[in-house]
Amino acid sequence: MKGVTDYIYKIEPQVVDLTLKATVSAIGNYFLNTAGTDAQRKGFGEDVLVPQNRSWVLSRMTLEVDKRPDQYTDFTVTTWIGENNRLISTRNFTGKDDKGEVICRCSTQWCLIDFQKRLPISLSEVLPLCEEFVRNDVPAPCEAPRKVPSCTPATFFERKVVYSDIDFNSHMNTMRYIALVMDMLPLEKLIGSSPLRLDANFIRECRYGQTIKIGMEQRDNLYLFEITTDEGVVAFRASVEFKDLS
Amino acid sequence: MKGVTDYIYKIEPQVVDLTLKATVSAIGNYFLNTAGTDAQRKGFGEDVLVPQNRSWVLSRMTLEVDKRPDQYTDFTVTTWIGENNRLISTRNFTGKDDKGEVICRCSTQWCLIDFQKRLPISLSEVLPLCEEFVRNDVPAPCEAPRKVPSCTPATFFERKVVYSDIDFNSHMNTMRYIALVMDMLPLEKLIGSSPLRLDANFIRECRYGQTIKIGMEQRDNLYLFEITTDEGVVAFRASVEFKDLS
Repeated sequence: MKGVTDYIYKIEPQVVDLTLKATVSAIGNYFLNTAGTDAQRKGFGEDVLVPQNRSWVLSRMTLEVDKRPDQYTDFTVTTWIGENNRLISTRNFTGKDDKGEVICRCSTQWCLIDFQKRLPISLSEVLPLCEEFVRNDVPAPCEAPRKVPSCTPATFFERKVVYSDIDFNSHMNTMRYIALVMDMLPLEKLIGSSPLRLDANFIRECRYGQTIKIGMEQRDNLYLFEITTDEGVVAFRASVEFKDLS
Repeated sequence: MKGVTDYIYKIEPQVVDLTLKATVSAIGNYFLNTAGTDAQRKGFGEDVLVPQNRSWVLSRMTLEVDKRPDQYTDFTVTTWIGENNRLISTRNFTGKDDKGEVICRCSTQWCLIDFQKRLPISLSEVLPLCEEFVRNDVPAPCEAPRKVPSCTPATFFERKVVYSDIDFNSHMNTMRYIALVMDMLPLEKLIGSSPLRLDANFIRECRYGQTIKIGMEQRDNLYLFEITTDEGVVAFRASVEFKDLS
C-alpha cells in the first residue's frame, strides 16, 4: 500500500532486559529510527532538510505496548504518515512479532524547525516533498498523544547530561528521556507483563553538561514524570499507565 | 574463508555523536553483538550454552579506532576465533567503512563460566562445538588485550546501576562500562579525530541497584579508569590512549 512501509529488525541482545524481551525504550527507539530511515528513503529526511537549516523535531509520542518482542526474533515495524495540520505532522507505527501479531503501536507528532531562527515552519513548505506518501485514510493505530499534566513528584533522581546521552545537536537523545523515566519505575513493573501506555511530551532540550532532575509521582497504576533542567525549566513530561491492576 | 565471517551493519542515528560518526562505545557494541550472533549461527552461542548453565563471559577487550564510521553508512565487521588456551578463547574483529578500508580493530578474550557453580570451565568441554571454526592461522588484527594497571583517580563520578544499564543477568551491560568511562573524558577528545586504543578488563559484575564510582587518572595522552562498587570491589579497569599528541 503506497506510503505504508515495513521495516524488519532483529531484536538484538543489547536491547533486552532480564526477561530476554526488548525494553520499552528500545521499542520506542526502533519506531523512531524507522521514522528517520523512512523519511530519508522517501526524500524528506535530515539529509535533505539539514542543508536547508531545517530539522524534524519530535513534540509528542504515544507508545502502547501489549507484549514486548523476544531477543533474536524478527520485529516488523510498519509506518505511515497520518494526519497533518499547519504545524504538526503525525507519523504512525505498528510493531509485529515474528508470528505477525501486532504487539505494540505508536503515534508521534513532529514539527519542522528552522534551527537557525529557532522557529517552527509551516508544513506547507515541505508538503510537496511528502504529499504523495500521506495516508490519512489509514486509521490511527492508537489514540493520539495526550498532553501530560504537571505533577507533584515524591521521588527524584538527579544526573548530569553526559556524552553518551547526546545526539548530533548536543541535545539529549530523544529516547534517553524515556529510558530515564522508565528507570525510576519499580523493577517488578518493568519486567512484568502488563500492557502499558506511555505518553511523552518533549518541551525543551536538555543539553550536554546540564544537571537534570527526574521527578516521579504515582497515582495508582498511573505514573507521572517531569524532567527539569538546572535552569528550572521543565524539559519533558511523561505518563506511564499499566493496564493490569495487579 | 572458513571461520572468517562478515556482518554488515548500517550506522544508525542513535549511535552517532555530534560529529555524525559512531561513538567508540557503539563501535564496541557492533563488535560484541557480532560475537553473539556469530557464535549463535555457528552453533556455540548462548542459545546452546545457557540451557547447560554455561555462558561466555568477556574478560578483556582491546579496541583500536583509527576513524569512526559515518551515520547511515555501511559498516562491515569481519570476525574469527583466534588463539585458544585452556581457559581463554580469543575472538578477533576488523571493522571496515563503506569504501572497504579497515578503520578499527578489536580483540576480545572470553571465558566459559558455569553460572550455577560460578566457576570457569575448561574450553576443551566446548571445543568440539567450535573447533572447525578456529582460525589461529589468521594474524591477530592488533596487539592482544593488556592488563590495565590500577590507578590513583583524581576525578570521580558516582551513579546507581539502573534498569536501562542491565542485561538478561541483572548485571551491567558490558558496553555500558565503556560508555561510562568514555563519558569522563573531555568532550574535545571524544569528538576529535585522534586514533585511539582502548583496553578494558572486566573483573567483577556491577549489579542492579548498586552505586558505582568511576575514577579517572590522566597521564598525558593516557587515561586510566577504575570502576568500584559500593562494596569497595574493583569491578572494571580500562585505559584509553590517544595516539595524536595534539
